[in-house]
Amino acid sequence: MNARPRLIVIGGDAAGMSAASQARRLRGPEELDILAFERGRHTSYSACGIPYLVAKTVSSAEDLVARDPETFRRDHAVDVRTGTEVVGVDLDRRTVTARGPGGEETEERFDDLVFATGAVPVRPPLPGIDARGVFGVQTLADGIAVRSYVDEERPSCAVVVGGGYIGLEMAEAFVERGLRVRLVEAAAEPMGTLDPDMGALVRTALTGMGVEVHMGEPATALRTEGGRVRAVATEKGEYPADIVVLGLGVRPNSALARAAGLEIGPTGGIAVDARMRTSAEGVWAAGDCVESFHRISRRPVSIALGTHANKQGRVAGTNIGGGYARFGGVLGTAISKVCGLEVARTGLNEAEARAAGFAFETETLASTTRAGYYPGAATVTTKILAERRTRRLLGAQIVGWENAGKRIDTLAAALWGGMTVEDLAGLDLGYAPPFSPVWDPVQITARKLAERM
Amino acid sequence: MNARPRLIVIGGDAAGMSAASQARRLRGPEELDILAFERGRHTSYSACGIPYLVAKTVSSAEDLVARDPETFRRDHAVDVRTGTEVVGVDLDRRTVTARGPGGEETEERFDDLVFATGAVPVRPPLPGIDARGVFGVQTLADGIAVRSYVDEERPSCAVVVGGGYIGLEMAEAFVERGLRVRLVEAAAEPMGTLDPDMGALVRTALTGMGVEVHMGEPATALRTEGGRVRAVATEKGEYPADIVVLGLGVRPNSALARAAGLEIGPTGGIAVDARMRTSAEGVWAAGDCVESFHRISRRPVSIALGTHANKQGRVAGTNIGGGYARFGGVLGTAISKVCGLEVARTGLNEAEARAAGFAFETETLASTTRAGYYPGAATVTTKILAERRTRRLLGAQIVGWENAGKRIDTLAAALWGGMTVEDLAGLDLGYAPPFSPVWDPVQITARKLAERM
Repeated sequence: MNARPRLIVIGGDAAGMSAASQARRLRGPEELDILAFERGRHTSYSACGIPYLVAKTVSSAEDLVARDPETFRRDHAVDVRTGTEVVGVDLDRRTVTARGPGGEETEERFDDLVFATGAVPVRPPLPGIDARGVFGVQTLADGIAVRSYVDEERPSCAVVVGGGYIGLEMAEAFVERGLRVRLVEAAAEPMGTLDPDMGALVRTALTGMGVEVHMGEPATALRTEGGRVRAVATEKGEYPADIVVLGLGVRPNSALARAAGLEIGPTGGIAVDARMRTSAEGVWAAGDCVESFHRISRRPVSIALGTHANKQGRVAGTNIGGGYARFGGVLGTAISKVCGLEVARTGLNEAEARAAGFAFETETLASTTRAGYYPGAATVTTKILAERRTRRLLGAQIVGWENAGKRIDTLAAALWGGMTVEDLAGLDLGYAPPFSPVWDPVQITARKLAERM
Repeated sequence: MNARPRLIVIGGDAAGMSAASQARRLRGPEELDILAFERGRHTSYSACGIPYLVAKTVSSAEDLVARDPETFRRDHAVDVRTGTEVVGVDLDRRTVTARGPGGEETEERFDDLVFATGAVPVRPPLPGIDARGVFGVQTLADGIAVRSYVDEERPSCAVVVGGGYIGLEMAEAFVERGLRVRLVEAAAEPMGTLDPDMGALVRTALTGMGVEVHMGEPATALRTEGGRVRAVATEKGEYPADIVVLGLGVRPNSALARAAGLEIGPTGGIAVDARMRTSAEGVWAAGDCVESFHRISRRPVSIALGTHANKQGRVAGTNIGGGYARFGGVLGTAISKVCGLEVARTGLNEAEARAAGFAFETETLASTTRAGYYPGAATVTTKILAERRTRRLLGAQIVGWENAGKRIDTLAAALWGGMTVEDLAGLDLGYAPPFSPVWDPVQITARKLAERM
C-alpha cells in the first residue's frame, strides 16, 4: 500500500484524461498517484472525428488519438490501465473493483474518484439489430470497424438510421466513399435540435446531395440474410442496405454511479455542481455521463460533446489538484457539416423555449456569407429567438454554405452574456467584403427581430 | 416653398443614405421631404469593395453600388442630387448652400440636417504626389480610375505607400493583376492597428506572397518623368513604380461642420451623442465624419468603416423619423485578407491600452483553424490582452489562414459584454473537427492567459 493520496479515474477519454492531466499539472507524482481505467484500447481520442475516419478524410485511426496510454504513463505519470473495466465502486470503503483483460478482478483504493464513464448509444430492440453490417459509431473501435467493413466488404448501399449530427456526418462519409445513401428518421425533419423550418432546409440540401431522405419513418426492423443485414424496414417501405449505421443519440452512462449510490439527476446524468462534485465527498464526475446546467433554461441537460467533456474534466482536475475552477454551464451549442452544408445551433429552439416557459418571438432571415458582390458569397439562413418582454436572446440556428456555421459563436457569446436582440444588432463585428455583408447575417436577423418586438 | 418638414442629408454614401432610408421608412413622403446632396456621381456604394474591383475579383463598378440615385428617387422618394457639393451651412437661418455640376449655387432650407461628409484621405505634400499614375483609393471614382489605369497603361510594377488595411488589400489586388508589388511603410511593421509582434507575422506572410516589403521607410518623394510617376523614394532607396497607390489612412471630413459652428471633438471628428445628435438642435451626423465612443478606452475615436457608417446612419434616421435609437459605440473591430492571410483585431492593442492607462497582461498563442487531423487545418495566431486586476478583456488580434479571421467576432462579442478571460475560456462555442480544435483557438489563448494572471 502506498501512503500517497490517490486519484482514480474511471474512463480514459476526453473528460477522464483531462481531469487526470490537469490534476497532474497541479500536483506532481510525489504528491499524488493517478490511476486511470479504460475498458477500451484507446485513450483521449476525438470521437467527433470518427465520420472523417470512415470517409477517409482522415487517413488513420492514430490521427484521432490525441495522447495514447503510453504517453500518459511516460509524460504524465498516469497509470493507465486499458482493457480494464471498473465493475463496482464502494464509496464507504473508498475502493473500486476493476476487471482486467483476462477477467481477473482487483480492488483499488482511492482518495479522490472521477466518474468519466461517457455515454451509451441508444440501441432500440429492433429485430435484426445484431446482424453483421449493423454498426454504432460511438467509440474509435466502432469507427475502425465501419471503415474496415467498407474497405473489405465493399457495400454499395448504406442506410443511416437517425438524422441527427452523427447521422448526417455518417451520411456524408458514405457519400464520400461512393455509396448510395439513404437516411431514415422518425421525426418529420432531420436535425431534431433545430426547429422543423430550419431542419427542412437541411433535408432539401441532403436531397440535392443525392441522399435519399425518409422522414417520419422510424425503423421498425432490420432484414437479414445469413446473419448479414440486407435492408432497413419502416412502416412505409424497405430500403436495401449492405451496411447500416445507427445514429440514434446517446444517454449518460451513469449505471455504475447509480449503483454506487450517487445522486442521478432528472436527465439520467450524474448530478454535479459547478465544481464537478457529485453527491459524495471526494467523488467527481465529468463529460457525457453528467448533467450540466443550461444557462438559458436554467435546467439540467445532458449533452454529449467533446468540448464540455474537456472543460469539465479540466475543472474537476483543477479542483482535485487543489485549485479552484467552476464550469459555467452550457448553451447547447453545436455545429456540423454535411457535404458543404453547415448547420449550427445554440441556446433553445422553439420547442425547448416553450417547455422552459418562455414567451418569445422568432425571426428567420436569409443573407449571404460574404458581401453579395464578392465571389463565393453563399446563402446563410439565420433564425433567432428572443424573449418577449426582456428582448433577451434565447437561441439561434444557422443553416448555410461555406463560412456560415461558425457565426454561431457570435450568437453563443451573446447568449452567454445575456444580451438582447438590440445588443446583438449593435455589436462591432468584423466587416470586410470577403468575410461578411456590411451588416453581418446574424445582425440583420437580430435587427429585423428587434423591429418587430 | 413647401410647408412639409424637410430633411437635408449632406453626403450620399453609407451613412447619409442609411439615414435617409430609415427616416423615410418611418415617415412617408407626405410627412417628410428628404433631399440628399452628393458631390460625386455615386450613392451608397461599398468603398471596402474597391480593392476587389481593381483586382477584377469583382467584375464591374456597378456591382459595388447597393442603390443608385435613381433607385433612391423612385423607391424611397429621396431627392438625390449628385455632382452637387454643399459649400456652406447656416445654422441660424437653417439653410445650406449647394453648388451644382455647372457651378450654380442654390440655397435650400432644412428642418433636420445630417452631416455624412465622410473622410478625407491623408495626402502628404510629397514632391511628385500629383503626377499621373499616383492614386488614392477612397472613392468609387478612384477605384474605377486605378482599374482603368492598370487596364490601359499596363503598369508592371506598383508601389503601395502605407501598410494598413487598404494598403494590404491594394497590394493583394496588384498581385492578382500580375504586377510586381512593393509596400513602403513608415512604421516598423505593417498593420499599425496590430501590435508589432502580430504585424511581423503579416510582414513575413507578405514576403512569402512575393510582395517586397520596406518597413521603417516613410516615402519622401515620388520621382516623375514627363509628369508620370516612375519611382517612390525613401531615405533608404528608390523603388520603381509605374503606378503608386496611397493608403495612408483618412481623417474625418469635418471642415464644413466646423465652419458651421458645430462642436468638433479631440480626434477631429464631429462630436455626437449616442443618438447621433451634434451640438446643434436638429443637426445630426453619422459615419466617417464623426467621432465615436470606444467601449473599452471610454474615449472618443474616429474610425472610418462602413459598418459604423451604416449603423450610425440608421440610428440618426430612426431618431429623425420620430423613433428612438442609440449607437452603442465601437470596439475598433477590423478584419482584412491579403492573398489568403486573414488579419483581424478588436478592442485595444498594447499601445492603446497603455495610453488608456490600463495595467494588463497579454498572451499570444498559435493553434489551428480546424482539428489538427482534419484536412485544411491552418495556423492561426491569437493574441489577447486583459486588464490585470479585473481580468476583463481589453483587446484581441488574430493573424492566420483560411477561416481564422472571423473568430474575431467571438472576441468582439465577449469584449462588448465586458467578459473576463475566464468567461471567454468557458464559452460554449461550436465545435466539430472541420470547424475548430476541441478548444477553439480563442479559448486556448484565453485559458493560457487566465492561468498566468
